[in-house]
Amino acid sequence: MKEYEQLFTDSIRGELKSFAEYRAAYREIWTLRNILSVLHWDSEITLPEEGRTERGDQIGLLSGLVHSKYAGDKFYALAEKAREENEKKSLPGQEERRVELKILFKDLNRSRCLSQELVEEFSVITSKAHAVWAKARKENKFSDFAPILNQIVELSKKQTECYGYQTEAYDALLEGYEPGERASNLENLFFNLKNSLKPLVARGKKINNPFPREIPISLQRRLGENLPSLLGLSSKMSRLDASEHPFSTSLGSKDKRITTRYDLKDPLSSIFSILHETGHSFYEAGISEIIGGPSPLHDSVSLGIHESQSRLWENQVGRSREFWEMYYPILMNSLDLKESELSFSELFSYINQSSPSLIRVEADQITYNLHIILRFEIERALINGKVQVSELPELWNSKMKDLFGIEVPSDREGVLQDVHWSGGAFGYFPTYTLGNIYSAQLFQAFSKETPNFSEQVTKNKDFSSLLGWLRKNVHWKGKFHSAEDLIRSATGMDPDSSHLVTYLENKLTELESIDHG
Amino acid sequence: MKEYEQLFTDSIRGELKSFAEYRAAYREIWTLRNILSVLHWDSEITLPEEGRTERGDQIGLLSGLVHSKYAGDKFYALAEKAREENEKKSLPGQEERRVELKILFKDLNRSRCLSQELVEEFSVITSKAHAVWAKARKENKFSDFAPILNQIVELSKKQTECYGYQTEAYDALLEGYEPGERASNLENLFFNLKNSLKPLVARGKKINNPFPREIPISLQRRLGENLPSLLGLSSKMSRLDASEHPFSTSLGSKDKRITTRYDLKDPLSSIFSILHETGHSFYEAGISEIIGGPSPLHDSVSLGIHESQSRLWENQVGRSREFWEMYYPILMNSLDLKESELSFSELFSYINQSSPSLIRVEADQITYNLHIILRFEIERALINGKVQVSELPELWNSKMKDLFGIEVPSDREGVLQDVHWSGGAFGYFPTYTLGNIYSAQLFQAFSKETPNFSEQVTKNKDFSSLLGWLRKNVHWKGKFHSAEDLIRSATGMDPDSSHLVTYLENKLTELESIDHG
Repeated sequence: MKEYEQLFTDSIRGELKSFAEYRAAYREIWTLRNILSVLHWDSEITLPEEGRTERGDQIGLLSGLVHSKYAGDKFYALAEKAREENEKKSLPGQEERRVELKILFKDLNRSRCLSQELVEEFSVITSKAHAVWAKARKENKFSDFAPILNQIVELSKKQTECYGYQTEAYDALLEGYEPGERASNLENLFFNLKNSLKPLVARGKKINNPFPREIPISLQRRLGENLPSLLGLSSKMSRLDASEHPFSTSLGSKDKRITTRYDLKDPLSSIFSILHETGHSFYEAGISEIIGGPSPLHDSVSLGIHESQSRLWENQVGRSREFWEMYYPILMNSLDLKESELSFSELFSYINQSSPSLIRVEADQITYNLHIILRFEIERALINGKVQVSELPELWNSKMKDLFGIEVPSDREGVLQDVHWSGGAFGYFPTYTLGNIYSAQLFQAFSKETPNFSEQVTKNKDFSSLLGWLRKNVHWKGKFHSAEDLIRSATGMDPDSSHLVTYLENKLTELESIDHG
Repeated sequence: MKEYEQLFTDSIRGELKSFAEYRAAYREIWTLRNILSVLHWDSEITLPEEGRTERGDQIGLLSGLVHSKYAGDKFYALAEKAREENEKKSLPGQEERRVELKILFKDLNRSRCLSQELVEEFSVITSKAHAVWAKARKENKFSDFAPILNQIVELSKKQTECYGYQTEAYDALLEGYEPGERASNLENLFFNLKNSLKPLVARGKKINNPFPREIPISLQRRLGENLPSLLGLSSKMSRLDASEHPFSTSLGSKDKRITTRYDLKDPLSSIFSILHETGHSFYEAGISEIIGGPSPLHDSVSLGIHESQSRLWENQVGRSREFWEMYYPILMNSLDLKESELSFSELFSYINQSSPSLIRVEADQITYNLHIILRFEIERALINGKVQVSELPELWNSKMKDLFGIEVPSDREGVLQDVHWSGGAFGYFPTYTLGNIYSAQLFQAFSKETPNFSEQVTKNKDFSSLLGWLRKNVHWKGKFHSAEDLIRSATGMDPDSSHLVTYLENKLTELESIDHG
């Protein structure tokens, strides 16, 4: 079962002419978006240095074309005719098509509401801001970044007025990444999490890199290249490359590309990037398997759910004892290491280490969420007008003191560390922690149903029961349910951070037993 | 001087509004074509197997978009307004713009004259024909290929009626690859060449592969990767990859991509592919340097001239004594070979070997042209209705006997060997030999002006005088002159095959002196 079999079958196609026409137009837009992904992928992986300017022109031209096709009146009119037709004709899949068109119109109205001037102003300022931010961070001068950040905040507030909201402006931006989510709900979810995590931070332990020497990239590459297919992602529909920042992207239903980064001193860096990005690619590949696409339903439900899929493979699977019992010999053999140089428990403790740090992207799985909660609280206050840009450094530093008990020595290691705000991406940060919360809850539900998963992994290197469960309960749902409903139907419970807390507590207990063992 | 500085400067832009509008539309089409090149390159180099079907959709959609933009009425009207405006206003560069628009209209009229039905029928049949040809070749059954080849020939004849011609139908197809060229002119050019080559064939000598062992791809890759930049193609605007069939393509003004193929048993295979493809990329890079583009003038003048640039670097440079005096130590060192295993004269003789063979793509620089002349004579007769498809095998075999003195044992090694006709590419073959003729003539003219080139190569590994001469005399001319005029202005002589014959004769004499030395 790949869900929604009635959505748009060949037999229905003949009876719903307007729907078929709207779908043909949608497919064109979808194909052009995939071409855009080819251009972006090539820019990151293979583009010669001097080709960058013209590549920008190519991406600009095609983006403009896609936008004008998608947000233009012609497509809107096609979709309206499809909606009328679907309401008139009682055919199988009517309700699914109704949901599809509801999702489409919600997104279309968002795309169409901003004025051309506002879009262009936002685009001009955020592209300038990237360089300003990078320089300010390098020179540790928040005051150089503040004026342009202030402009971005004001433009973002203008956007919220176009998009509209019920209780607070921030919700209008959050909606762009996490449809249906509200800041007040996140506040509740994060409140419990924050209080539970603070005592765990103190129990964490810093472990130094236990690798006895640098490991050549060629060995690391050979090891990493086999990992996606070991997990279950076929190399016939995916490939792995190296890039400065790891990412995954979809260039078509059966063309998923993953990247990683190799660190001579720490081969785990690339392994965990591959685990993470493979999780994203599994989700995208699963969505592509849903019958009857492409359509607005054939898409990820939210960034939080997307991130839950990467985090699940990275943390729930990738930092588990069963995974490493299976993978430790493979890694040691591929990297030419002897057990006397690096023992299982040294490696396993290192993989699960935890200690407070200043930088989000270097944080472990316990403290990471506190970094996110800090950012969520600050950006929410900023967009809702409760705090001014000039107050950010002080606010940041006091929250770091409160959450981690550490002093921030410089803005470079504090409020200036992330790129997101310079791009105007307010509302993005909380999806990281939502992903962590959802991943723990999903994995717990799966584990209950599949008590012998550990054995399947350790004995047979077999992850298919997990991938099958995720396909059925997450991937093949597409965008049909909200993120919250999806979690509810997959786990039988409301979204709840307690599963993540329990997971982290158990992890700490396990590590403490190694320490004392 | 990068030619045509007056063509379309900023000061002229303000005065020629219609011309500027037409040029903006042209730039969009040009940018979309570059995006198409990205898709094609990715298909050959990086696309996962299962992504192929959707990539076909992407290419189909974008090709259709480009064609409708280019051949559509809107662009035609813009170009007409630009032409009227240019005639009215006497501004610097008026003549150049006149030439540009003349070239454009010639090509536009060709693009617009075929009916949609004919284009589609041709596209459907040629894509079917590829598989039919491949199977027929494998099974050595010309009779299986004949019916569909006949359909292609009939459709091609229909095309010639649309395009129009003065004396013979074949000219209308030749025009698509070699603008301004005529079959009767080729006949003269090739007549002399054929008669001069036949005695040389007998003087050639087969030399066996002298490499003492297989050479790992990693060593070959490291050697090959440095070759384009050694010749003068910057790695900041180009890259080298491996593919089944070597090719070069342009993804933008400063994004030139080359591919090669590695043969474990013969490292020269990849070296000569790189030399060849670098020559093509030099030409495309040089065209991009012309001031005032992109425009219809900023394009290669013909496939013959394009091929002259690849052949010049592959043969005139790449098989010369001076090149190998410089490159032999580099090759030996990079491939971990000792002089006692492979001497300079063994290698040099192998590089310049010649002997009659059945297969065009395996032919040497002497016999290659006879393979081409054979195909030119046959396809010309076919399109002009002087010969029927059913007669091809016998005709082929008798010509092989006449030109090479060898019997063709099977159609697989005879009339079925090439892919071109299954794609309907009649008129393409002669451009290969035109390229050889032009390359020898150009290199001779250059050598006269630069007597110390050998020394620059052997002592300083410096090819810049040659690249500079080609830029000035060939690349920076774009499409402003016909191929014939370009050769005339660069060399001071009409196109003439005697330079190629002299070059080949000298080469044989040189090899014979090694033999007897």
